[in-house]
Amino acid sequence: MLEDLKRAVWEANIELPRHGLVTFTWGNVSGIDRDRGLIVIKPSGVEYADMKSEDMVVVDMEGTCVEEKLNPSSDTPTHVELYKAFPDIGGIVHTHSRWATIFAQAGRGIPALGTTHADYFYGEIPCTRPMTKQEIAEAYEKETGSVIIERFKRLKPNSIPGVVVYGHGPFAWGDSPLEAVHNAVVMEEAAMMAWHCITLSGSIEPISQDLLDKHFLRKHGANAYYGQSGTR
Amino acid sequence: MLEDLKRAVWEANIELPRHGLVTFTWGNVSGIDRDRGLIVIKPSGVEYADMKSEDMVVVDMEGTCVEEKLNPSSDTPTHVELYKAFPDIGGIVHTHSRWATIFAQAGRGIPALGTTHADYFYGEIPCTRPMTKQEIAEAYEKETGSVIIERFKRLKPNSIPGVVVYGHGPFAWGDSPLEAVHNAVVMEEAAMMAWHCITLSGSIEPISQDLLDKHFLRKHGANAYYGQSGTR
Amino acid sequence: MLEDLKRAVWEANIELPRHGLVTFTWGNVSGIDRDRGLIVIKPSGVEYADMKSEDMVVVDMEGTCVEEKLNPSSDTPTHVELYKAFPDIGGIVHTHSRWATIFAQAGRGIPALGTTHADYFYGEIPCTRPMTKQEIAEAYEKETGSVIIERFKRLKPNSIPGVVVYGHGPFAWGDSPLEAVHNAVVMEEAAMMAWHCITLSGSIEPISQDLLDKHFLRKHGANAYYGQSGTR
Amino acid sequence: MLEDLKRAVWEANIELPRHGLVTFTWGNVSGIDRDRGLIVIKPSGVEYADMKSEDMVVVDMEGTCVEEKLNPSSDTPTHVELYKAFPDIGGIVHTHSRWATIFAQAGRGIPALGTTHADYFYGEIPCTRPMTKQEIAEAYEKETGSVIIERFKRLKPNSIPGVVVYGHGPFAWGDSPLEAVHNAVVMEEAAMMAWHCITLSGSIEPISQDLLDKHFLRKHGANAYYGQSGTR
Repeated sequence: MLEDLKRAVWEANIELPRHGLVTFTWGNVSGIDRDRGLIVIKPSGVEYADMKSEDMVVVDMEGTCVEEKLNPSSDTPTHVELYKAFPDIGGIVHTHSRWATIFAQAGRGIPALGTTHADYFYGEIPCTRPMTKQEIAEAYEKETGSVIIERFKRLKPNSIPGVVVYGHGPFAWGDSPLEAVHNAVVMEEAAMMAWHCITLSGSIEPISQDLLDKHFLRKHGANAYYGQSGTR
Repeated sequence: MLEDLKRAVWEANIELPRHGLVTFTWGNVSGIDRDRGLIVIKPSGVEYADMKSEDMVVVDMEGTCVEEKLNPSSDTPTHVELYKAFPDIGGIVHTHSRWATIFAQAGRGIPALGTTHADYFYGEIPCTRPMTKQEIAEAYEKETGSVIIERFKRLKPNSIPGVVVYGHGPFAWGDSPLEAVHNAVVMEEAAMMAWHCITLSGSIEPISQDLLDKHFLRKHGANAYYGQSGTR
Repeated sequence: MLEDLKRAVWEANIELPRHGLVTFTWGNVSGIDRDRGLIVIKPSGVEYADMKSEDMVVVDMEGTCVEEKLNPSSDTPTHVELYKAFPDIGGIVHTHSRWATIFAQAGRGIPALGTTHADYFYGEIPCTRPMTKQEIAEAYEKETGSVIIERFKRLKPNSIPGVVVYGHGPFAWGDSPLEAVHNAVVMEEAAMMAWHCITLSGSIEPISQDLLDKHFLRKHGANAYYGQSGTR
Repeated sequence: MLEDLKRAVWEANIELPRHGLVTFTWGNVSGIDRDRGLIVIKPSGVEYADMKSEDMVVVDMEGTCVEEKLNPSSDTPTHVELYKAFPDIGGIVHTHSRWATIFAQAGRGIPALGTTHADYFYGEIPCTRPMTKQEIAEAYEKETGSVIIERFKRLKPNSIPGVVVYGHGPFAWGDSPLEAVHNAVVMEEAAMMAWHCITLSGSIEPISQDLLDKHFLRKHGANAYYGQSGTR
């Protein structure tokens, strides 16, 4: 069932330790088959080294397992909420990667301080608000999705493919599971450099809108000219 | 004698360089057989690469060697004290891992600033008080155990499985030697991120009790639902 | 066509991930054949692991491809400008390496704080001025070259073989593609150490002119005596 | 000639990249045969990967080559001065390792802030004074040795086996070339942790004399009890 998507999700999960984004089992990638309304996600608490493609878990749009196998990641309800709210995305990743988590723990967004950031994220990577006592107690993982969605009310998830959750850590997404991981790697780089810029300078202004436009738009959208598929 | 425990202790010691927690021979893991009242510990000053399972040293609850072999770790008396005082623990690790040691040297506990910390440590990882001239001079390694135990008078070692010793470095523990090392890895991650949060923000509040409860308790205790063994 | 130069450029590109200077495809090295007026450069958006020597792209001094192959790096117009303005250089590299990029994002040059820096760069590695709205909008990559050249009006590119571009990242150059990469590695080391010196001390003076002279000149110029080719 | 010492010096040099202490060829280890009054040292500017045991260069106590081979390290006169002044040492290492060099560039000694430091260095690792214009111009490498020796007028090189040279980088020494490298690794660890302690706390006191005594003396001197050779 969904062998190709399981393989893509497995491969994207395997990229996490390769890029130094996870310790132990602290991360999970999912992908979605929009036509069938099914999500494939990493099983909970399984070591990356031991994980096989067929261990990936299939859940429906309510987060209910549709195959009797391993338990899905405990963060599955968050993924489900994001897939429902962001109709264009095809993959989601959550990690506790160090630099992005530092911003999450400090309750701050990751400002757009350079072109590395601007190449992938069209502005600050936002931080969610603290969750309420009730949100934490009742349906914590689902509500984690809700506060992310709330934060993106006036933001475009396709242009800013990631967020840091207050006190917790980053989520990133993309067209595919692999692109979600790609964006998580970029977020980590941008966060590392932003931390050091802020600490060096006390405070620091984001790059100009002109430079932000130039870099984001030369890689994304109708007039992109980076890579081998453009018209250039 | 105690071949299985020797193997478990050896394997846990070997994990230390794999996780980047030790330079040279600066670390030691032990395990205990509670029924026989015997502790197995790394030999003193032996390279990790050369160490074999049978090199592990067996001592009794007074720290006296019960086999004529290599010298046990010079930190053995500290391990003995902790096993006596904390009856539920099955393994102990001591290292000079960089980030936890920075907090130890600064004389500060590692505050619970995020869910990564809360997943494993139910509150701040405490720092011991400075040792007195007499404690240092007379039975230094034994007294190192005593100041840790003193610090845990009002704390539960099962919920906060680690400490930083003032001016020295971290100790961590767990149900088994391997779990002790696991907790030491988490402490190092939490310390790295805490250092950068504090430095970024000047001062910073711990995460809310609600979030601390949620994360610690979804992984530990009767209602845990993380991983493959839960009821979820 | 230009097989030797293609090989040299390919080898220099391959050095970038080996020295930890690039994430994904974020870097490019070029070389020039001054006699023929042709530049060889990395193709745009191609993974380092997949790249072969024959994938390198040949462009003329206007940046126009002279073979029908892959697209050249989108930064090609910057390289072209620098080759035109700096007649002695044989190779150029651009990356988003972390420490140099931090200085670029902070809008600061990398000061000469020690002999490591002085061994390769004869003074501060400068930062360009912010580009104007028009420079960004019209011929961005070409104008990136122009602001670098403007910054070097009173500096010698042979003595200071690198720059950080405001809000963007480093460029470095040298006699050959490989030497350009070598200088980029040194810039990264110097930037890492400068960041930590500045943060430790608040402010810090550059090393003395005497020490700068000594170290730069014992490695470069007529009286150099480092290595195996000198007279010493 | 001196095959055993050449091999020991070569092996110690090879340890430098293995411990991450050097970039390119920025480091050199030497050893001495006190009976014959001959020093063996790394050749100048040769890559670690290409270096063989027989490439090591033999010089006399004036720094003059006694075999017609490769040029010795340009830092040879510094090594010669130190061997003359410190009669007990058997090996010397110089690197530009990042954390120790940061302290050198900041013109500060590395304070003894914890037991990791105290296990190997019996107090602060000192920083030399700035060299004068004349010292730099005339016999720079020899004078580098002189300022180190001057700094140790009231210090014991056997108890504090290392120094940072103002604006430059660390030197370390020991009974053998390998022990010198060992001490250089410890200095780097201690410097990394000291930097982060100072930055975390603003200012910070060294550890107590009691703790310094305890840790240094349990590893060194007549009453040492660490490792497998003690009486314990």
